[in-house]
Amino acid sequence: MVREAERADAIYDEVQEQQGAPEERRERPWKRYLEAELGLRNHWYPAFFSNELKEGETRHEMLLGERIYFKRVRGRVFAVEDRCPHRAAPFSSRVECYTANTITCPVHGFTYDIRDGKLVSILTENDSALVGKLSVPPYPVEEKFSLVWVYIGDGEPRALREDVLPTLWNTPDLVMLPTTRYKIRANWRVAIENGYDTGHLYGHRNWASAWRYGAVLPIGTVNKTKDDIVLLEEPGAPVGMHVKSSVNTWVGEVEGVKVHMNMLDLDNVPPKEGGLYPPGFGPFLPCGLDVPGFPRPGLFHWEWYVPVDEEHHMYTILQGAQAQTEEERENFHREHEEYLARDVWVDPGTARAMEPPGFNNFDSFGREVMQHAYKNEDWWRRERLYKADYTIIQWRNLVSRHAEVVQTRAARGFAKPDSLTRSYPENPIP
Amino acid sequence: MVREAERADAIYDEVQEQQGAPEERRERPWKRYLEAELGLRNHWYPAFFSNELKEGETRHEMLLGERIYFKRVRGRVFAVEDRCPHRAAPFSSRVECYTANTITCPVHGFTYDIRDGKLVSILTENDSALVGKLSVPPYPVEEKFSLVWVYIGDGEPRALREDVLPTLWNTPDLVMLPTTRYKIRANWRVAIENGYDTGHLYGHRNWASAWRYGAVLPIGTVNKTKDDIVLLEEPGAPVGMHVKSSVNTWVGEVEGVKVHMNMLDLDNVPPKEGGLYPPGFGPFLPCGLDVPGFPRPGLFHWEWYVPVDEEHHMYTILQGAQAQTEEERENFHREHEEYLARDVWVDPGTARAMEPPGFNNFDSFGREVMQHAYKNEDWWRRERLYKADYTIIQWRNLVSRHAEVVQTRAARGFAKPDSLTRSYPENPIP
Amino acid sequence: MVREAERADAIYDEVQEQQGAPEERRERPWKRYLEAELGLRNHWYPAFFSNELKEGETRHEMLLGERIYFKRVRGRVFAVEDRCPHRAAPFSSRVECYTANTITCPVHGFTYDIRDGKLVSILTENDSALVGKLSVPPYPVEEKFSLVWVYIGDGEPRALREDVLPTLWNTPDLVMLPTTRYKIRANWRVAIENGYDTGHLYGHRNWASAWRYGAVLPIGTVNKTKDDIVLLEEPGAPVGMHVKSSVNTWVGEVEGVKVHMNMLDLDNVPPKEGGLYPPGFGPFLPCGLDVPGFPRPGLFHWEWYVPVDEEHHMYTILQGAQAQTEEERENFHREHEEYLARDVWVDPGTARAMEPPGFNNFDSFGREVMQHAYKNEDWWRRERLYKADYTIIQWRNLVSRHAEVVQTRAARGFAKPDSLTRSYPENPIP
Repeated sequence: MVREAERADAIYDEVQEQQGAPEERRERPWKRYLEAELGLRNHWYPAFFSNELKEGETRHEMLLGERIYFKRVRGRVFAVEDRCPHRAAPFSSRVECYTANTITCPVHGFTYDIRDGKLVSILTENDSALVGKLSVPPYPVEEKFSLVWVYIGDGEPRALREDVLPTLWNTPDLVMLPTTRYKIRANWRVAIENGYDTGHLYGHRNWASAWRYGAVLPIGTVNKTKDDIVLLEEPGAPVGMHVKSSVNTWVGEVEGVKVHMNMLDLDNVPPKEGGLYPPGFGPFLPCGLDVPGFPRPGLFHWEWYVPVDEEHHMYTILQGAQAQTEEERENFHREHEEYLARDVWVDPGTARAMEPPGFNNFDSFGREVMQHAYKNEDWWRRERLYKADYTIIQWRNLVSRHAEVVQTRAARGFAKPDSLTRSYPENPIP
Repeated sequence: MVREAERADAIYDEVQEQQGAPEERRERPWKRYLEAELGLRNHWYPAFFSNELKEGETRHEMLLGERIYFKRVRGRVFAVEDRCPHRAAPFSSRVECYTANTITCPVHGFTYDIRDGKLVSILTENDSALVGKLSVPPYPVEEKFSLVWVYIGDGEPRALREDVLPTLWNTPDLVMLPTTRYKIRANWRVAIENGYDTGHLYGHRNWASAWRYGAVLPIGTVNKTKDDIVLLEEPGAPVGMHVKSSVNTWVGEVEGVKVHMNMLDLDNVPPKEGGLYPPGFGPFLPCGLDVPGFPRPGLFHWEWYVPVDEEHHMYTILQGAQAQTEEERENFHREHEEYLARDVWVDPGTARAMEPPGFNNFDSFGREVMQHAYKNEDWWRRERLYKADYTIIQWRNLVSRHAEVVQTRAARGFAKPDSLTRSYPENPIP
Repeated sequence: MVREAERADAIYDEVQEQQGAPEERRERPWKRYLEAELGLRNHWYPAFFSNELKEGETRHEMLLGERIYFKRVRGRVFAVEDRCPHRAAPFSSRVECYTANTITCPVHGFTYDIRDGKLVSILTENDSALVGKLSVPPYPVEEKFSLVWVYIGDGEPRALREDVLPTLWNTPDLVMLPTTRYKIRANWRVAIENGYDTGHLYGHRNWASAWRYGAVLPIGTVNKTKDDIVLLEEPGAPVGMHVKSSVNTWVGEVEGVKVHMNMLDLDNVPPKEGGLYPPGFGPFLPCGLDVPGFPRPGLFHWEWYVPVDEEHHMYTILQGAQAQTEEERENFHREHEEYLARDVWVDPGTARAMEPPGFNNFDSFGREVMQHAYKNEDWWRRERLYKADYTIIQWRNLVSRHAEVVQTRAARGFAKPDSLTRSYPENPIP
């Protein structure tokens, strides 16, 4: 079922009504969203890029507070919990792989088949009766679109397709290239809201590479009617929303000082009403944002805010283009390498001389500076939303309606948050 | 009403009786003081020195756990909460001032008049209906005695005069110069008690600059009678106490080894009884210490232990002198610059070659080494006070009697203590 | 009473039965052990090596969360709590010793006789009535076997003998040399279990110095019958256990790949059954491991995992040999210096060029990588033990039976765990 945002046309009234409600009532519509600090179970998540794990290699990642150990065996990627079931030593603490199919715990020699997690040998006790009985919990894994996807959840996983951003799944002849995976200190919800937040365009007004893409952007937009947002809630398909069109603010003013994008020609301000976003733009469960047509028509930008723990998400950006010939593919490769990737994101600390920040670096800034208050100062309640935040309200309600299982630390027996970032030493033996 | 310390002349008996009482009873007289870990609301605090904020500039400070953003507009200093009411981004995370009167949130362009906190424009939504309705909480500010004072409290502020150290307010022809503002890891109560604690003179016995001021100090003093302490509790005037005179210990002894100040002539030990402190010496609410006549008659020393959070105070020292002519003023400037400031305080890490610590550096040491146990090991109960601590007992009772509102984190919706010192990155964009 | 392990011969069945039990029941037999996160009170602990404290010197150590201040006076070592009873300043924050017998608090000059903890003088108040009444809690101290032992407990201490590893106390003509004291981030229980854990031999298979000692080790052993473990529970003697003999795994196999010690001759594999451990090998209360005959017959290795706080133990290794003549003693000194010490332990960060890790460095690795999950992820319950862990089960039960008083933070009024490692600055005055 594709349904339109059900509430009043008077978006501003709705936001205000919601905001004016007594505190108790205010949070009610998106209560489950507020609980989802660690993300949503029973979904597929992009864990890392395919090119980050070569044949025979292993790597570990934390997603939704879970520690996962990956290995590529004859091309295919498998994953298990990064804890030996015997006494919890992480497989990743010292890599011991005697054969392609197996991983061995470095402390007591428990050896598991990475393909199904089953204990195949205890090196330290010949013919142990535990063999065949013990196993390390495996994770379903799929590899597609140059990403390795892992299913965090219980029971039979849903089809991968339901958790892949629509334009990534549906566009023919796509070529795509990894742009970044960067761990950022902000909860995944603060991050995703910032991704499609129609008011934070303001921060992009000084984007240095705008000229390259002819990107004359407003400094803010609001939705005019409920039709601006189409909620996608079809069973068996990705759940998300399309943000269709907008009322744009091209020029803001403070005591006579005009504020606008650096590219804007003040003598030629575009019309106030009109679609800013290309068809298909919008956030999707569990944690992705579909941005077709960015930074210019014909290009594709997909990004995810993968929950790592309560205070961090992995900011994952994939860029793509349609290409039917080898030459077109090569052109995209070249364009990506020469400027496209770094026009949108420059890993902190890697800027070249005089290189300006990328478009999305501002987004990262916004998330980081809001995180502290949302986490520690009760701002999920204290926030005062405005008209542009209508998309955020719709998103929160959408997630609350579709969250099957909210990930919680207590239910998983995980580490307490304050100890999350500490870990075993990388190489404790001199 | 100026009242004398009401209790027995037998000070030692009182301290001991208090100490010998059952645990439950022991803390009773100063229960409210024990609650005031974050300081007292409804008072004026010296936030920073006037010369730390120039025309048009902004700065942020934390006082009593509150994050405050200051701006100087046409000479006058204004302050608001350092959180945009929309979604909590700190104004200080990136300074955006389009006009002299305004501050703008760097994430969504909400723009406020710093003079009253009112929202004057949302750059990202022309003609937003929120304009005039939303505001960021403003703080009353006054500037006087080369300090910017901010009122942390509710309702109409009391007169500034009630919270200024008496000799600073009352002495004619004062010239004053900032000496330091240094953040120290100790609760403000541990700090202020250490400031006038008549027993810790011991630690100053090796003060290297004593010769310059002819400062022959005892290594400890105790109050002889209740008259030694005059409690100042007049309505409408600063609440505090004057410590008037003393029984001095000039020489201590351990198994025949004599311990005394380096300046003391053992053949000419001053009389045991006699006033050490100049008239006017003593602690005052909310967190200051008045030290006229230090380090020598004719000079003035004022210091404050401004609560930052539960574990830190801002140690603020102002020094002054009376000066009627330009020449006298210049002399004080020169003296301050050449030695006076550094005789009392050397910022850690800034000592010049062979430069000894300042007088008050020892005080900082004392606070820091007591802090851990008071904070974490229940020493507000476990301490065993002695005769010299009579001034401390009087102070605790005084504060408990006059604390209108104790600052608490819960009531303010603030950050949890353990996350206090983390903040947004200074400059997260590469 | 020396009693044999009371349970079934079928060790594997017992481990499995225990593991298969419902969660509630599973932890029952060693419940008190689980509570003993901070260690056991009423025991003697090796605090440091004799040569770490010279005549007249002081030092501070934390054991079981308690802060202790030591001083050597005319050859004998004394200890008191490292907190002045007045206002908690640590004596160790600035050493002030006016005489051999005394320590002085650097803040207010309270001076105590280190030999009994009694207040002998307050430098800042002549003839204080508190003298003779106040004292700082003293700790019983003994010095023996080149170690300074401190009694952490209440009342009259048990005889030191009950807490010294048996071969250290009983072997005649011993000469012994300190090898290391190194603070490691793992709870003392994770550490000691790893010390005699008969399955973790696996990790030692690549020990570089094995050739020197002719050490051909299996990669794992299990106990065959209950007779393999002798529980020592005689009153008045050390409580612990002897692990006597073993079923050895010399070669493990994963999909046809053989895994074994680097020294093993595959054409000449030793018999499967047979005693690996020399007589006397095993763990003893409160926290030691007796390892006679290591790394070769005739040498002695003693080690302790002294609880520092919940997350750290002090790994203390002492090595020895029997020597009747001066020449024999000198030989051992030379051997220890040239290779013996560093064959078993290389302090992290001190490895010489090309120097391999010592035998016990692997043990440290094992403890560190298991610690996080045991501390934070509930692995005391989630662990799945195997046959080799029979010794661990017996140890846990043994400790639970004999733990007189479990050390707890709440009962001692100590610092909260998260603030344990913070302390006063070493040298806060510039």
